Formats: sequence, C-alpha cells, structure tokens
Amino acid sequence: MREFQVKEGRIFHSASHEEIVKGATADIYFVRTRELLSYAGKENTPVVAEFFCSRAGVLAGVEEAFNLLKDKDISLWAIPEGEDVAEKEVVMRISGPYDEFGMYETALLGMLASASGWATAARACRDVAGDKPVFAFGARHVHPAVAPVMERAAVVGGAQSCSCILGAKLLGKEPTGTVPHAAVLIVGDTVETALLYDRTMPPDSPRIILVDTFKDEAEETLRVAAALGERLLAVRLDTPGERGGVTPGLVAEVRARLDQAGYNFVQIFVSGGINLERIPQLIEAGADAFGVGSYIAGARAIDMTMDIKEIDGAPLAKRGRIPGLTQNTRLISYL
Amino acid sequence: MREFQVKEGRIFHSASHEEIVKGATADIYFVRTRELLSYAGKENTPVVAEFFCSRAGVLAGVEEAFNLLKDKDISLWAIPEGEDVAEKEVVMRISGPYDEFGMYETALLGMLASASGWATAARACRDVAGDKPVFAFGARHVHPAVAPVMERAAVVGGAQSCSCILGAKLLGKEPTGTVPHAAVLIVGDTVETALLYDRTMPPDSPRIILVDTFKDEAEETLRVAAALGERLLAVRLDTPGERGGVTPGLVAEVRARLDQAGYNFVQIFVSGGINLERIPQLIEAGADAFGVGSYIAGARAIDMTMDIKEIDGAPLAKRGRIPGLTQNTRLISYL
Amino acid sequence: MREFQVKEGRIFHSASHEEIVKGATADIYFVRTRELLSYAGKENTPVVAEFFCSRAGVLAGVEEAFNLLKDKDISLWAIPEGEDVAEKEVVMRISGPYDEFGMYETALLGMLASASGWATAARACRDVAGDKPVFAFGARHVHPAVAPVMERAAVVGGAQSCSCILGAKLLGKEPTGTVPHAAVLIVGDTVETALLYDRTMPPDSPRIILVDTFKDEAEETLRVAAALGERLLAVRLDTPGERGGVTPGLVAEVRARLDQAGYNFVQIFVSGGINLERIPQLIEAGADAFGVGSYIAGARAIDMTMDIKEIDGAPLAKRGRIPGLTQNTRLISYL
Amino acid sequence: MREFQVKEGRIFHSASHEEIVKGATADIYFVRTRELLSYAGKENTPVVAEFFCSRAGVLAGVEEAFNLLKDKDISLWAIPEGEDVAEKEVVMRISGPYDEFGMYETALLGMLASASGWATAARACRDVAGDKPVFAFGARHVHPAVAPVMERAAVVGGAQSCSCILGAKLLGKEPTGTVPHAAVLIVGDTVETALLYDRTMPPDSPRIILVDTFKDEAEETLRVAAALGERLLAVRLDTPGERGGVTPGLVAEVRARLDQAGYNFVQIFVSGGINLERIPQLIEAGADAFGVGSYIAGARAIDMTMDIKEIDGAPLAKRGRIPGLTQNTRLISYL
Amino acid sequence: MREFQVKEGRIFHSASHEEIVKGATADIYFVRTRELLSYAGKENTPVVAEFFCSRAGVLAGVEEAFNLLKDKDISLWAIPEGEDVAEKEVVMRISGPYDEFGMYETALLGMLASASGWATAARACRDVAGDKPVFAFGARHVHPAVAPVMERAAVVGGAQSCSCILGAKLLGKEPTGTVPHAAVLIVGDTVETALLYDRTMPPDSPRIILVDTFKDEAEETLRVAAALGERLLAVRLDTPGERGGVTPGLVAEVRARLDQAGYNFVQIFVSGGINLERIPQLIEAGADAFGVGSYIAGARAIDMTMDIKEIDGAPLAKRGRIPGLTQNTRLISYL
Amino acid sequence: MREFQVKEGRIFHSASHEEIVKGATADIYFVRTRELLSYAGKENTPVVAEFFCSRAGVLAGVEEAFNLLKDKDISLWAIPEGEDVAEKEVVMRISGPYDEFGMYETALLGMLASASGWATAARACRDVAGDKPVFAFGARHVHPAVAPVMERAAVVGGAQSCSCILGAKLLGKEPTGTVPHAAVLIVGDTVETALLYDRTMPPDSPRIILVDTFKDEAEETLRVAAALGERLLAVRLDTPGERGGVTPGLVAEVRARLDQAGYNFVQIFVSGGINLERIPQLIEAGADAFGVGSYIAGARAIDMTMDIKEIDGAPLAKRGRIPGLTQNTRLISYL
Repeated sequence: MREFQVKEGRIFHSASHEEIVKGATADIYFVRTRELLSYAGKENTPVVAEFFCSRAGVLAGVEEAFNLLKDKDISLWAIPEGEDVAEKEVVMRISGPYDEFGMYETALLGMLASASGWATAARACRDVAGDKPVFAFGARHVHPAVAPVMERAAVVGGAQSCSCILGAKLLGKEPTGTVPHAAVLIVGDTVETALLYDRTMPPDSPRIILVDTFKDEAEETLRVAAALGERLLAVRLDTPGERGGVTPGLVAEVRARLDQAGYNFVQIFVSGGINLERIPQLIEAGADAFGVGSYIAGARAIDMTMDIKEIDGAPLAKRGRIPGLTQNTRLISYL
Repeated sequence: MREFQVKEGRIFHSASHEEIVKGATADIYFVRTRELLSYAGKENTPVVAEFFCSRAGVLAGVEEAFNLLKDKDISLWAIPEGEDVAEKEVVMRISGPYDEFGMYETALLGMLASASGWATAARACRDVAGDKPVFAFGARHVHPAVAPVMERAAVVGGAQSCSCILGAKLLGKEPTGTVPHAAVLIVGDTVETALLYDRTMPPDSPRIILVDTFKDEAEETLRVAAALGERLLAVRLDTPGERGGVTPGLVAEVRARLDQAGYNFVQIFVSGGINLERIPQLIEAGADAFGVGSYIAGARAIDMTMDIKEIDGAPLAKRGRIPGLTQNTRLISYL
Repeated sequence: MREFQVKEGRIFHSASHEEIVKGATADIYFVRTRELLSYAGKENTPVVAEFFCSRAGVLAGVEEAFNLLKDKDISLWAIPEGEDVAEKEVVMRISGPYDEFGMYETALLGMLASASGWATAARACRDVAGDKPVFAFGARHVHPAVAPVMERAAVVGGAQSCSCILGAKLLGKEPTGTVPHAAVLIVGDTVETALLYDRTMPPDSPRIILVDTFKDEAEETLRVAAALGERLLAVRLDTPGERGGVTPGLVAEVRARLDQAGYNFVQIFVSGGINLERIPQLIEAGADAFGVGSYIAGARAIDMTMDIKEIDGAPLAKRGRIPGLTQNTRLISYL
Repeated sequence: MREFQVKEGRIFHSASHEEIVKGATADIYFVRTRELLSYAGKENTPVVAEFFCSRAGVLAGVEEAFNLLKDKDISLWAIPEGEDVAEKEVVMRISGPYDEFGMYETALLGMLASASGWATAARACRDVAGDKPVFAFGARHVHPAVAPVMERAAVVGGAQSCSCILGAKLLGKEPTGTVPHAAVLIVGDTVETALLYDRTMPPDSPRIILVDTFKDEAEETLRVAAALGERLLAVRLDTPGERGGVTPGLVAEVRARLDQAGYNFVQIFVSGGINLERIPQLIEAGADAFGVGSYIAGARAIDMTMDIKEIDGAPLAKRGRIPGLTQNTRLISYL
Repeated sequence: MREFQVKEGRIFHSASHEEIVKGATADIYFVRTRELLSYAGKENTPVVAEFFCSRAGVLAGVEEAFNLLKDKDISLWAIPEGEDVAEKEVVMRISGPYDEFGMYETALLGMLASASGWATAARACRDVAGDKPVFAFGARHVHPAVAPVMERAAVVGGAQSCSCILGAKLLGKEPTGTVPHAAVLIVGDTVETALLYDRTMPPDSPRIILVDTFKDEAEETLRVAAALGERLLAVRLDTPGERGGVTPGLVAEVRARLDQAGYNFVQIFVSGGINLERIPQLIEAGADAFGVGSYIAGARAIDMTMDIKEIDGAPLAKRGRIPGLTQNTRLISYL
Repeated sequence: MREFQVKEGRIFHSASHEEIVKGATADIYFVRTRELLSYAGKENTPVVAEFFCSRAGVLAGVEEAFNLLKDKDISLWAIPEGEDVAEKEVVMRISGPYDEFGMYETALLGMLASASGWATAARACRDVAGDKPVFAFGARHVHPAVAPVMERAAVVGGAQSCSCILGAKLLGKEPTGTVPHAAVLIVGDTVETALLYDRTMPPDSPRIILVDTFKDEAEETLRVAAALGERLLAVRLDTPGERGGVTPGLVAEVRARLDQAGYNFVQIFVSGGINLERIPQLIEAGADAFGVGSYIAGARAIDMTMDIKEIDGAPLAKRGRIPGLTQNTRLISYL
C-alpha cells in the first residue's frame, strides 16, 4: 500500500471493488500494523475479534463482510441481516490469524455501520406504515457508489422496493418509480406525458403519474384519471415545500375528488420529506404508498467497534473492555 | 438498463465506476424518461438545469461531476470546491440537450450532496480548532466505497489530512495515523510496540504512540517518552467512553507530567468522540491535534435539487420554482 | 333595572345602544349599589375614580366613553386614543358625584379594554409591516355588534382601513375588500369573475382579484393579469391551510412569474393566518399588502380597572391600592 | 350599503340591531358580490353552504343565527347550542338561493365564533369545579354591546348565572352579584355596608358580602358574620394581586376561623383571576363558589369557516376543501 | 445574653453545648421578647406551640430537642425520628409557660430542619439502592461541629453506617472507611499500602482497598487481589472527575476482570459524586456498596416553622395560620 | 480514637470544641492512616498539601483553620477571608510533617466549604441590594452549633449584621432583630407590643416593629406609627405565604400610606423568602432593608478538596491531579 498511486484519468473518488480488496480504503495504521507485526514475527498470531454496535437497530451489511472474507483462513460468526440487534450487542465474531483480516477492520466496520443505519431507518418507516408499502427513493442524497448499498439495506430493513436500479437488482427485485418532473416539463403537459408513459411502458408495469408539475394537483389528478382510465394505478403527489408540501388535507381532498368522479380504484402515492411523524397522518388522510428519501438516506450510521478479545487463546482486551468472548447465542456460523 | 443483471460472484454491493457511468445507480425513472422522450422525439430538447443546495455549507464534489460530464456535449458552470455556499444558492448549472446528462441527475445530486456535507463538518472543526490541525479519522463509519470520497471532502473542507490511504492520495497527500489498539494488544506492551514502530517506520514518518491500551495514560506516556526520547512526536489519547473518554483534565495532567519530566517537546494528539464543543475545551487543556471520526463521517448530506429552468431557450419551471436562470456571478465556466 | 324585561321577538343577544345607556349591560351589583347608597343618602357623594390598564399597549375606546358621559355633571380626563400607554398607567380619570357615572363602571371598562386590545394588535402588525399597508379583515371572528368597534380600533392602532363597512365609515374611511370565494364559485371561473367585477365596480375602486379558488395560484394569476391588464391593481393570495397556506415561496414565485410576463405593476395582497412572524417573511418574499384577521380580532383585551381614589376630597382607596390621585401629565381634560 | 352613512350624534361604535340586519357590519366584499352576481343574473343560484369550527369546544350562538335567518327562504340545519363539537366538525348547514343569506356570512360566522369561545371556557370551568357553582363575572372585560352575548354564552356553557343584567335575563335567569368595592368605600366601613345591603335588598335575595376592602379579610369576615348572623349566605374574597390575591391558605384560614366562631353555615365565594388551575386548589381549601371574569371573557373565539359545497345541486368547492355535503347526523333541522 | 462576650483564645466559631443551652445561638429577638414579656408580667403565659415542616421527608433531630427540653416544665409530643412526614404536617407540639422554651425556638427549628434534610436524602439513596448498603461519607462537606449530626441523621434515614467517628458512635455503630489517597501517596504504592493496612488493622475489620491512586484501576485491582487474597473484602473505586469518574463501564470491567482471575468474592465499593441517578446504573454494572458524600451532606434543610396556636387555653394564631391545635394522631407523648 | 466513647447524658449531637480538636469528627480512615503510617515509620513524612474549591465564590472559614493549626509545626498559606476565589483555585496550602495535620483533613475541608458557601450567598444578596443593608436572619434553618458559623460567614460575605447573638459577637458586632410573632400574640395587640418594646429597650436600640400579626399590614403600620411617632425607625413586613407574602405592591402601598400620613421618616424592613430575584423588585417598590433567611442558610457548601502535591520535596499527586505546587500569588503566609 505504501506505493499505492492514484491513476491518471480516474473519474470517481469512490473506491473500486479491487481497491477495497487491496486495502486502499483502509486506515493507514492497519498497513503500519502489518509491517510492525511482521518485523516482530507476530503477524499470524491467532486472535478472536468481536464487533459490537453502538446503538440498537436492524443489522445489515453482513453479506458483504462474508463475501470479503470468505476465502480467508478464518472462522466467522454473525447475526443474520435484517434482525434487530440491541445496544452494544456483539453482532459478528472473527477467529483466525490476525493478518488474515486485520487490514479489513476499517472496511468491515464501515459496511456494517452504514448498511445497518439505513436498514434501521427503513424498518422504522415500515413499522409506522403498517400494511401500506414504503419505497426507498433516496439515491439522490448519497454518493452513487453507495446508492445501491443504501437502497438494498432499506429493502433488507423493510422497504418493499427502491428506485435505484442496481439496489433493487442486488436483491432480485424490480426497481420502482414514476417519471421525474423533468420529463413532464420537457413534454409540456402532464396528461400528454401520462399518455406517452402509458404507451412506452411494458403492459405489466404500473402506471403511477406525477401530478404536481404544472397545475393544481386536484385538477391535474382528474385530468390524468380521465385520460388513462382504469389503466391508472396511482397518482403521485410530490408538492414542493414552497407550495406547502404534501399535506394531509391535500391527500384527503384528492381522495374525495377521485371518489366523487368515480375513480375510487386510483391510489395515492406520496413523496417529499416523508418521515415517521408524517406517515401516520398521511395514512389517516388516505395515502396508499410512500416514497421515502432523505429520512432513510440521511440516517446516521450505527457505528460499530471491533475489539480483540482473545490472543493465542487467552482472554485479553484493552482498558475499558471486558476480556474474553461475549456469550451470544444469536451468532450463527457463516464460515 | 432494462436488462441490467447482477453478476455471479460479486463481492460488494457498492457500484463500480463502470456501473455508475452506465447508469446502473440512477433512479429507474430516468431510464423511463429517456424511453418516453425518445418515443416523442424530444430526447434532445435543449434545456438548462440548475442545482441548488438545501442549506448553507462548504461545496464539494464538483470535480467528480466535471469528470463524469466532461466528454458530453454540454456547458457546465459551478462554484469551485471548498467555497462557502448559502442556503438555496445555485451551485451548478448545466446547459445542453437533455439526453446528454438527464440520466445522471441522481448521481450528480448524490456526489455534491454527500461530499458537501462532509466538507462542511470538517470546516466547522477547523474553524473551532484555529491553528491546531484536524485529521479525518472516520473511514470506519462509512462504507469503504465512499471512505475516500468522505476523507477527501474533509480535506477540501479544512482537515490537514486523513487516515484513509486512497482519500489522502486523491489529493496528493500522505495519509496520517498511528497504530491501532490491535497492534498493541498483539505485541502485549505499549512500550515494546512503540519501539517496534520506531524501528519499522521510515525515518521521516512521525512517531505518534497510542497510550491508553493497557495502563493509565499518564503512566504509559512517561514510559513511552523515556523509551523513544526525542524521536517521539506525540502521544495519542483515545481513552474509551467506559473509562470516561478523553477529558480536559486528562490532557492537562498528561501535559503537566510530560513537562515536569522534561518532555515538553512531546505533543498530545486526541481522538474519540471529538466534536465542536469538545475541541475548544481540549485546546484550552493543552491538546495539539485532533483525530475526528463520526462528527465528520456522520454529518448529514447537504441535499441538492436539480431544477429545469429553461426549455428550448424559454424560461420554464415546475410549480414552486421560479422559471429562468438565477443570477449568480460565482458560477465559473468549467466546460 | 330590577324590572328589566327582554322583549318578545328580539333577534340579537347583543345590547342595543339604548340598553347600554339604560344600564342593562351593567353588572347587577351596580344597581344594588345605587339602591343602597340612596337609602343611606350617599348616592351623590363626590368621588374621584381612576382607570388603569393591566398591561402596556395602545389606548382606544375613549371616544365612546366620552360620548356616554358627555351630558353628565362630571369632569373627565383621559389620554387620547391611539397613544401608547404603559403597564398600570392611569389612562382616564372621572371626578363628580358617584351616581352620575358609577353605574357605567362595567361599560366604561369594557369599552376601553376591548378596543385597546384590538388597537394594540393592529399597531404591532403595522410596526413589523413598515411601509406596507395592513388591512383589518377580522369581522368574521367577532360578534357583528362589535365588528365595527374592532375594525375601527384596528384603524386607530395603525391599520390603513378595514373590510367592515360600518367600521370604516365610523372613521370616514372607505371599506376595503376583494370578492369572496363564494362569488368565484358561483360564477364558476376566476377570470370570468374578475371581468364581472371589473365591469360592476366604480372606475376608481381598486381591482384586487382572489386567485386561489379553482386553479394553481401562479397559473390563475397570469390568466387574470392577461384578462384585466393595466386595470389590475393586485392579486390576492388566500391559499387555505390544507394547501399549505400562503408561503414565502409562493409569493416569490408569483412575483417572478408576473415580472417575467411583464406585469411588474401588479401587486400581491396576502391574507390567511397573517401574524407578526409571517409579515416580515412575506415582505421579504415580495408581498405588498396584508389582510389581517384573527391576529387582530382575537387579541386579548387590555383589562382595565377603576379605582376610587378620593371621597369627599380626601384620599382613600381599598387595600392594595394607593389612596389619592396619581400624577400623570398625559391626561387631557375632555369634559 | 354603498351609501351607508354614520349619523351625527351617534354614541356607540357598536352596531345596532337594525344595522346588523341591514348588512352594515358585513365585510364590504359581500356587498360587491351581490352587485356582481346580480349583474350576471346569478344572485339566486341555489347553493348549499356548510359552517365548520376550527377547534373542538362547546357550540353557542345558534339561536341568534336562527333568529337572523328565520324569515328567509332557506333551509337551516345545526347542532343545538350547548353541545360539544369536534375539531373541524360541520356545525351548521344552509341551503337556498345565495342572495337570501350570502351577505350574512360575516355576521353568522362572528356570532357562532365568539359565543362558542365563551361557552367553551365556561364549560371548562364547570368541569373542574364539579358541584361548586361558577358565575360569569367578566362583563367588564368586553364591550357592553356583547357583554350580554358573552354572559349568556357562559351560562349556555355551564355557568350557573352571571352578573350582567341583560345576559341573565336573556335566559330567564336572575343576575348574581354582591356590592362593588366602590360602595364599601363610599359608605366607609364593610360592616355598615353589609347592614345597609341587608336592609335594602329583597328578603329572598342572597346576602354575599365583600370583605377585603379595608381590613384583613379574616378579621372583617368575623365582623360581618357577627353583624348579619344567619342572614349571611357568604363572604366574598376578591383580594387584589398587590396583596397576593386569593390564596388557598386564605380560604382555608377564613373557613377555619368561621367554623371556630360557630359560623359554619357561611359560605366562601371567591373571585379575582380565577382559572382552571386555581379552581381545584381553592375547592380543596374550602371555597364554595366562583366568580370567573377574564378567563371566560378573554377566551379566544372558536373561529368558524363557511364553505359553499354545492351549486345548482352539484358538488363543488374551492381548492383545499372537499366538494359536496359532509355527513353529520348531529345536524338538526331548524328551518 | 445582653452581656454575652466571646472569650479570648476561642478556636472555633461553632457554639459549644453550653452556649446553646444558655441561648447564645438564639436570634436576638427572643432575648428581647423575654425582657418585654417580663416587664408586662406575661412571661409565664401558658401557650401551645406547633412545629410544622415545609416539605415532605424523613423526620430527624427529635432526640436533641427532647434532650434540650427534658428538664423544663412543659409537655412535648412529637413524631418519632426516622418516620416519613408529609408536607406541612405538624411534627412536634409543646405546651407550657412560654418562658420555659420560647428562647429555644431558633435552636429547636434548626435541629429539626437540618437533621431532617440529611435523613431525607439518605433515605432516598437507600430507596434506590435496594439491598446494597449505603454509607455516609460526607463529613468533609460540613462544618466539623455538625458532621456527627449529619452522619447520625443519615443513619437514621437509612445509611448503614458512616465514616465520621462521632457520628457512628452516637448510634452505637462502628464508623466505616478505607484509607485515603494521602496514605497511598505517602507509602508510594497501592499494594504496599494494602499490605500495611492488612497488617495494622484488627482481624475483624474489613479490608477495603482504594485502587485508583497511581495506576489504572483494573490493573491495580488485580495486583491488590493477588496480594491480599481471600482477606480482601472489596476494592474501592473513587476515580476523580478529571479521569471520567466512576462509570458503569469501569465497574463492569473490574467485576469481569476480577471474576476471570478467580476473585469473584471481592466486592466493589464505589464513591465520588454518587447520587440517585447513578446508584441504579452502578448497581446494574455490578457495584456492591456506595459511599455517598455531597448528595447527603449538601441536602437542603427541611425548613420548619413554629406557630403559637393557643394562649391561655384559647385558640389563637397569627394571620395566615389557623388558630387552635391541629389534629395529628401520629404525635407521641415524649414529656 | 479507637476507644472513643459517647458520654452518658450528652445533650447535643454536635461536636464540642474538644472533640473536634481530638479528632472525633474526622473520617475514620484518617485514624487508620495514622496507625498504618506509624507502623511503616512514615508518619512524619514531609508533605505539601493544597486545598482547592469546586466552584467560584467568596472564601470564608480561614480563621478557624488557622486557629486549629496555629500550634502545629507546619507552614500555612491562604487567601484571606472575604475575597473572591475562582473555580478550582488553590485557596490554602499546608507544608509540614503529615502527622501534624493529616487527621484534620475532614475538619479543615468542612470549615472552609460551609463557611464559603454561606459567605458567597450573602455576597450575592449584597450585590443586588446595592446600598440597602442586608441582615442574616437564617439561624433557624441550621443546627444551633453552626448558626454562629453561618451568620458570621454571612457578615464576612457582605451582610451588615445578623440576628444570631454569638454570630454577631464573633465579629464584635451587635445582633439585629425585632420581636417575633410570638411576643405580639402573647401580648395580644401589635400597638401594645410596640409600646412595651419601646419602654424596655435601651434608648439607642432601633425600634423596628413587626406589623403583620393580627391586622392588615397597612392599617397596623399607621397605628404603630401613630403610637411611637418619631421613635419608630421602621416597620417590618413578614407576611406569610398563605397571605401572598411580601409583594412589591404591599411595600409600595405601605410607603405611600406612611408618606400621606406624614411618616416619611419610617423605613420599611422586609423579610420572608427574600432572594436575588425579589430584592431588586422590593427595592424598586420602596423597601429599605432586608432580613434574609433560607437563601443564605440553605446555600450549598463550596466543596473543597485537599490534594497532596509534594512528598519529601518531590512533586507527586494522585491520578487526575497535577503533581507539584500550583502557582498562586494570592496565597498569603499565615504561619
């Protein structure tokens, strides 16, 4: 790593898969540790390391950790992805020669931390949404390199699907979405856009039409419903904050106007600043589905810590930590 | 993108550079937009789009945006990286046929949003730290794919360097670090570890030794200072929360005991839960440098929005936004 | 008063002018006091009474007090209407035989209290609105019997005019208003309503058109401006809370769209939940005038207290009050 | 209305009954609406309008609304006075040609709003007072024109009676009161005043004597009890704030001293700043009845809104409201 | 008392027992009262006085009050020490000639007030500590003259014992303690101090060793346990705030390290800023006993009031109080 | 100390002066330390100890510390009594053989801590009272043994005098006071009590008469002023909380009524729950002097800590403290 060089013409600052495997994203001190331990002939000291989480939440990221280590000469135990974990619970344990995995401490912690933070936020949304589906719509709030990590974690946590193509495909799902305001603006009219959308989409793809671009949402909703008829699955309300956002009153009114006009089969999909407080209010008003962006994408990571707990078979730990293995029957053998 | 498949044997969930370029991290609706506009023969409609930030901060991520678009048939203006931007300020503008860049809306927003969030937090640390250097130590709190993006952004914002190897190299800097607790635990003694470190590092690499692993920090500090003498640049205090963390009282005492023993040249490097409240208190007590982790790594993104403001040369915008170009003389022509 | 009877067929519960003069709105104990004092031969004892206010504000209601007492054998001093008064300041003084005015204690206190509360709230609006006019629009929040009292007091406090016909006429002003949503709904279209309004109003009456009834406000604004052209003085934004109310973003956008279409002479008149926090934000966004309803109409009265301070020329007061006249050079002789 | 003129020599600013009926208290725009609709030949368009309340409370003012409209060619439904209504509940509905009632929108809203606010506050007092009677004593805090409206509404809400003569008579009740401090001051002694009161009142009128004018309340209570003996129903404590107000300790002490002197039949009537927090504390200390002033008189109106919901038999409403009739089985047919 | 003089060479400002008995600590006005009443021949007027407490708590100090008055010609009733008393409850009653006890009003109030405050705080600690013992360690926070009063009151309230020698002996208990940091510092090593302590203490005196003076607490704990073996009852953690104080994490780690090394019989005694919030957290972490200092020693007194309630057999009291005896069956006859 | 026994017939729990000197109030561990060090032959090790305060305030108690140690073979430096000290400032330093003073650590800390807490509170009162005198009236809130310590400390801090006889005499002052409610109750009338007081006091003793016992304070004030005339220095208002306490309104009214009756030379002395918020309000209303009780008496001690900083001439300290002497030029040599 000492001689690692950044190539000319590199487009992105994010690390490629190869760079992560080679250790280019490690903290420099793990490289130094390897040199120091090799000099002392201790690089292969058998150790047991435990990973614990700083707060309660939903665990995610274990699959990547397993993939990274699966060819190493170690044993690995972990709590499966998607399970609830308690504050300070040990969520993963690795046993083996230090040099087999020591350099990946930074990477492993990062994978678990950020994925678990996102999964936890998605679970919270699902819990307040009950049987109404939640979709992860937050790719625009994170770097594209981790957008699929984030959206996959959201689905692990409880989202029904997500808008990021790669995020959905990682779990074998189809991505979900409508059309952006940009398309409506370029076409110049919501109804015309809806008709074009209807014509160009595969027959089995759901018709969900954005109705807040040009005109009053209630007015536009009825125009779109008239144009698409029974092929219309839902209208999407994404009213910007400058216009008061999507209020429960707007949802209730759109619902009532749709029903009065005979379109009670048309659903209402809402997005824009959706969070735990607003979901129940919007359900109460008649919302059928939620696109959640920054609430999930901006969730804080659940910071993780790796502690060495045994060296050469003997309990040992740094000051502040309890030496020896922590009993946790929820840890499953992965490797 | 419709037929995009995830390959067998993939290790990481993060997107490769090629996947981002191909659009695999885009929200699915941008793919649909392309199809819809092509069907209508409008995919090359000339548009002007503006990007504005949701809150004030330090702008970062422009370099990646430029790299992504530099071979496209568009014009690009932006505020340079590292500059302060105001709430709702227009930070980037793109002019050109929609199809040249429309599919990258998600990626561009994400690059700017997360990098700017990190740069802003680092700037805040630097501002309260005055002339004491701040180092980004938070790679372990984010996915390894974006660890270099985060640490580079922190340096753009004001950190002196960072611990992530690739993060530092992206800016032509050397990464900074000490040794982790793991190394001290495996070697079995702090002083012995310090001597090994001293022996295995290049002569010009600074000697900063972690002193809280086994014994009382003040006691260990004096042992390490005696062992390394004038070659010791600094001791690093990283006391865990279970032991009260790094308090101003601890820093003041270590400083005093070093001075009384004649080691007034040895600096004190602190880390562990460092934030804006604690930096001034620790400087007051005698700290010389700061390793900042989750305060920077866990900073919220500065969410960005892209608005189409002109179509075919005419001002136009969705409801809630003001049609036409926003005057901002700080936008520099990049492309 | 003992035998006072409510007449058959009475429409309103409010007191007629004659009932107030006869004492029918007095607290019963003032009637009893008169009987008791007459029995003791003390009903004409010379007294001096002072009125003080419970908190600082703008004094109003003095004109009614003067009208009520102007034919009585008393002297009356007061601070003029519209002046600021301090907490606990003596605002009115009456000297004369008790029976000449004692029975009106309830009425006098009520006139001063409620009018001063309303004037104070209107003054606060004007103070934050600077040179932008404020109109009292709150008649619907109070009983019609006092609607003119309230709106007159608002003008005394600083409103430019008001919507209540009688309220404005009491001060020799013309009432101000637009058309209600009811008219637009019955006519069926905003532009058609605007044209009817333009045709039926006197030429010198300002054309201010409500634009939020049927369609998006920005869309409707441009339609109305096109229809009335230079005869249009202002559009009125009164968006209901269910649609997010009148936000600064909406005002700014309507302003920008008007300007882009060449209607920079058209003003923006806002109403609906206007208060001291919102006025400066809306001015910043481009609002030109304010219709204020419940903030003024719902203002708490400035409760007043009448204390007897001299009897038969000697200082005297109840426990808790200081006997004798309070010096206040701001009291002007009215009677 | 255009030519409405204020007469010379008018005493009060409040509207006379005739002025309200003529529309002089209407907002000016209702006059304009009539002109505009007449011009378009739409003044007699059949409409249905609904009135809803902005917050939960006790409904009052319906009788006045009915009186105002009872000779019009309309149908009217409402929830009866004194019933609890929920936030946003439809409390009144009018069906008929718009011109029959449109001009009264301001007046109708005002009647319901202010009376309901007062009734709600009185209900809250009664609810915390349990079986101890509450009397409305707040006429001095409102304009005399609405003093009877307020005090009647308080009785509708739950007060046992009130001090305003006309307010009580509107409901066929006798007004309640004692003597004011003014009478005691002019007579010069509390006991002497009590004896005069006893002599001049009808035998069946209750003897309640104010005891805080000149001397310590406990001392004066015993003097008055000795003077009136079994004819004394209650003493009234109205201690001013400058002397600490009426505290629970004072009530308990007066109760104890009365009992020790054998006057356990004498009740304690308290007044002065009585509110929901103080009533239970004072009951606990021994208070028997409450005179409530500004808590009721200063209660905010329950703002009402009138929405047109049907035009020519078809559901219709402005943006933000749901077209068509709202189902509410609590609406009773009045007309 | 008029001629009372302070003697030359006096060491302390605190009152000697004789000075208290003579009245030198009384408020001067009680001396004046005696002179005044003697002049009027009323010094032996029979009175009944009651003492009530300003807030709820645990009563203490009664024994001293009894001792002070036991030779006087009075009757005395009180609630026994250690019982809970309610806010404003009468806790003591004295009947007799005023001069027998009037001059002691100040002293009696002070004894009850401060002792009850301390007992109440100790009771609160015991209540949250459950079956873990609490020891009063706060002598250093009060004047030495009252240190035994305070520590005795703490034991009355619920502490198992205390560190103040005289405080413990007053209740026939043995004082509890370890050795101070001073001893360890002078000896120069914790283990050496522990061995000296073990050698010099009587065999039945418990061995509790302070382990935070020189080295890391966990390290020192194991050294001390190795040195004293089964003779070691407990280690005491008293980590200063500059080092983060005694955290639950430290307690848990020391417990775990002791258990892993086979010393599960060694208890953990904690001290330093212990309060009601921290006791349960530290018990959860494994603490076995608590030394509580400033939480008990700094507790506010429960201010007491003495009221004369009968004079010459007749109920009488000052304004604000209820004349005559207060019924309280919890008052026991002491004298 | 081991064999220390509590004597039969002891009246008080407070320590006598001899007991303090003998060490009976020490924490037991100082006795053990002496035994342990003697066994090790280290009892006379030369040490330097420093005392620092936990928070800023006014230092008091130094005189007692000096008195206790003045015959010992040590050197003593301290900041003089009455001076402001900063948080954590070293306020006293002792140098000498440990055994000369080690056992007094508890006593010395307690003397400084409690006296400084009281002096600090008194200083705060004086600071807000400006040139109006403050008197310490809180003896009844503390144990009589420390009442003189407390009241002396209050005078050191800024009180003009105090009511505790011994407290005042310790500083060569005359105690200050009036007569208690008890005297007025036994005599049966305030004016009669005032006359007896006037007759029995020495001519130069100020006449301050309590006026709230039986009647309204304003009424009683005028009766007392009429009775004593120019011999009356002040009336004292001490109205109990049950009657609303001493309000600014009461003070202003008494002042006005005194002035109107020609008694402008009579001052107003207030007491009862006086604190930092109330003093300025009461001065504004006309109060001339303050009797402060629980605000001073209930002030928290300023906890002190003693640290050994040198042993045998070498800097040394426990973990968490800085070895060696702390520079402080404000320390004066006392011994």
